[in-house]
Amino acid sequence: MNTLLPKSRVASATEMLEYVLPQHANLYGTVFGGQVMAWVDLCGVICAQRHSGRPCVTVFVDDLLFKRPVRIGQVVRLRAQMTAAFGTSMEIEVSVFGEDTVTGEQWPTLECRITFVAMSDELRPTAVPPLRLDSDAERDAHVGAAERRRQRLAKR
Amino acid sequence: MNTLLPKSRVASATEMLEYVLPQHANLYGTVFGGQVMAWVDLCGVICAQRHSGRPCVTVFVDDLLFKRPVRIGQVVRLRAQMTAAFGTSMEIEVSVFGEDTVTGEQWPTLECRITFVAMSDELRPTAVPPLRLDSDAERDAHVGAAERRRQRLAKR
Amino acid sequence: MNTLLPKSRVASATEMLEYVLPQHANLYGTVFGGQVMAWVDLCGVICAQRHSGRPCVTVFVDDLLFKRPVRIGQVVRLRAQMTAAFGTSMEIEVSVFGEDTVTGEQWPTLECRITFVAMSDELRPTAVPPLRLDSDAERDAHVGAAERRRQRLAKR
Amino acid sequence: MNTLLPKSRVASATEMLEYVLPQHANLYGTVFGGQVMAWVDLCGVICAQRHSGRPCVTVFVDDLLFKRPVRIGQVVRLRAQMTAAFGTSMEIEVSVFGEDTVTGEQWPTLECRITFVAMSDELRPTAVPPLRLDSDAERDAHVGAAERRRQRLAKR
Amino acid sequence: MNTLLPKSRVASATEMLEYVLPQHANLYGTVFGGQVMAWVDLCGVICAQRHSGRPCVTVFVDDLLFKRPVRIGQVVRLRAQMTAAFGTSMEIEVSVFGEDTVTGEQWPTLECRITFVAMSDELRPTAVPPLRLDSDAERDAHVGAAERRRQRLAKR
Amino acid sequence: MNTLLPKSRVASATEMLEYVLPQHANLYGTVFGGQVMAWVDLCGVICAQRHSGRPCVTVFVDDLLFKRPVRIGQVVRLRAQMTAAFGTSMEIEVSVFGEDTVTGEQWPTLECRITFVAMSDELRPTAVPPLRLDSDAERDAHVGAAERRRQRLAKR
Repeated sequence: MNTLLPKSRVASATEMLEYVLPQHANLYGTVFGGQVMAWVDLCGVICAQRHSGRPCVTVFVDDLLFKRPVRIGQVVRLRAQMTAAFGTSMEIEVSVFGEDTVTGEQWPTLECRITFVAMSDELRPTAVPPLRLDSDAERDAHVGAAERRRQRLAKR
Repeated sequence: MNTLLPKSRVASATEMLEYVLPQHANLYGTVFGGQVMAWVDLCGVICAQRHSGRPCVTVFVDDLLFKRPVRIGQVVRLRAQMTAAFGTSMEIEVSVFGEDTVTGEQWPTLECRITFVAMSDELRPTAVPPLRLDSDAERDAHVGAAERRRQRLAKR
Repeated sequence: MNTLLPKSRVASATEMLEYVLPQHANLYGTVFGGQVMAWVDLCGVICAQRHSGRPCVTVFVDDLLFKRPVRIGQVVRLRAQMTAAFGTSMEIEVSVFGEDTVTGEQWPTLECRITFVAMSDELRPTAVPPLRLDSDAERDAHVGAAERRRQRLAKR
Repeated sequence: MNTLLPKSRVASATEMLEYVLPQHANLYGTVFGGQVMAWVDLCGVICAQRHSGRPCVTVFVDDLLFKRPVRIGQVVRLRAQMTAAFGTSMEIEVSVFGEDTVTGEQWPTLECRITFVAMSDELRPTAVPPLRLDSDAERDAHVGAAERRRQRLAKR
Repeated sequence: MNTLLPKSRVASATEMLEYVLPQHANLYGTVFGGQVMAWVDLCGVICAQRHSGRPCVTVFVDDLLFKRPVRIGQVVRLRAQMTAAFGTSMEIEVSVFGEDTVTGEQWPTLECRITFVAMSDELRPTAVPPLRLDSDAERDAHVGAAERRRQRLAKR
Repeated sequence: MNTLLPKSRVASATEMLEYVLPQHANLYGTVFGGQVMAWVDLCGVICAQRHSGRPCVTVFVDDLLFKRPVRIGQVVRLRAQMTAAFGTSMEIEVSVFGEDTVTGEQWPTLECRITFVAMSDELRPTAVPPLRLDSDAERDAHVGAAERRRQRLAKR
């Protein structure tokens, strides 16, 4: 068998895949909102920990927009992309898609931004490495991050 | 036994209570962020359905701020309060507290705003009753709702 | 946002709210009996710990009567009321109601009595404060508690 | 492989076995009371359905006594024994034991009585076959069933 | 009540029973393959620990064949039978059956072989007692075990 | 935000990512074997359905080898790769790795082969497209598939 480890991913991008079972569903046979939010949080924290090399905690979620639901038997795909690093915190954008593995159809389901803080061994906020912006897409996603952060701090 | 039904609640306020078990916890023995978000969504949807008398779906979450965690064996208390109604949508504020039932200590854990849309039998957005603002606290919570809505629509 | 903590509750009354999802249901699309019993136990132990200020363990359940079921998409409301304190043990009555948040209909689902024992730091039974009976309803619920206890001890 | 079906069991006795995982545990690392009650209900309903050949619903639980807890990594064994049949209802006694599969130690954990009603295809109570009492142990367990039933009916 | 402990089982045979709820099901209303595999693993590890008196870990699964599915509301019965002991490892055969408790029908659902290793307190493989082959059925199941082991070792 | 759909994947390769929570763990704080097997089955079925464009059912699992465990707070990565297509069935190889997102360490956890059958709308086996072998790695993985299939058929 092929036991080679997959190639190392770039720390700032993380993908997850979940098969929707009845245990994830609401009355309508679609995944319930809170379950998707739970997966979004896990996908984001993996992304944040891969970048920072530290345990991370969720401190803020905003701009979380639900689009189209996903049914039992379909698949939820999550993609977390880091968009900014500020001292001890990281802004991560999570995009979620539905996929019908039988028809091949795909559609946007949810998007949001989550802010994580990296923790030291003493459970205090600790500095994270700066974010490298290698592509145009990364530079586009970064635009406005400082202004978004200013608005969040004003709300605390 | 007392089999009288509890008195009817005001539709715009809903309280939930959850005992934190190991199945809700993360590596640190505290409830993981996604689980709290799942409870927040359920508490909000009950509040929205009680007000509108319609099945409701989550469309937006913002201003979600994590404060202090809650440990296994402690209790999570959630309180959803409707702050605005706009045609077919409702803005609901959810405040979450931790409680140690042994010491009696209580503390803020999370707060956020969720927007729900009421659905007709044909699964189309349908009008909701206007929100009655009976107390000063309700009027205070309502302040700024129109501006917050304008910002959300700009992001879609 | 309103970050004031809700006012302190009387220790002897505890309310919970659960949204019924497919993961709680049986073949008929209603919440299965064991799941309701699990929620009843959690609601009772929170009530017992709030009164005693100690970790509590379940020792006896009786008079547990199922009435009308609750469907997926409806809500289960639980209300635990302490009815007697005896040295190291507490008798707690739990009443459970169904609620359809869309129609507003409510109905009795289950009622039972649970006896909890308060535990010391050495995991031994420890004394609990006496129960204050402030209202006629509390005094009514207390009637017969000594006789019920006598019957339970005879069964051990 | 041996693909012969195990021999048919007597309808009135049912055994279950559950391995205790962290998802079943409370703060103390032992299975939480509500989880055991959920397993007890499932074991009882299988026993009732095997006897009656009908879907059954739980209507009453009493004499539920907790004895000694079971830890994560240990095993919960349940044994449901039918003790009486009355028209459309069945009284079933469930005994629960802990087992440490490494040391071989076993101990009583819980016992209770559950009353189930058999349902017709129209979801109405329907008659169940009479209980055959084949052994002295079965006859002993049956003693007092009529009096216990009388007390339950007085409580409804 | 009957509080006698059930008679000690032979260490090499273990039976489990699971009631299929919607939380275990796939899109088709039958228990999903991974859930059955999880139960098979738990049934096997109980069997291995009862024989060895040691904590055991799963090291190999093969010959796992799915036959006929089991629906929500039906019951899954598992039977683990030890077929060989080799130094520190044990080969266990798990046979799974479906049962409809209402009609009494039973059918084969899955069978497989699992190899477990017994662990010392230092978490190292440790010797297990030899397997006693008391019946013809046990001797039949043992046939070919040495050859199957040779093939497994060749694959590592 | 970036709402472009990720580029279409090759049907024969599927990756999943799971964050290990206490609800997935055994007594030792590592993910229990049955939980990993459940994830393996889901990852495989997504891969099979993407290739065949049909609902698929698990029919056989073999060569399932556990290597090194994964702890709470670490991540499980699964990779399903199709290795052969035979009429109505597909052989899929699933490789599982552990990852510590804080240290960046990665290690092999499990590998196995699963055979799925594609189902028609009438729930009968239906033909699947042939497998294209585009790379040397794919050709290597395919080697021996016909012989492995012959051995499986001999066991049914």
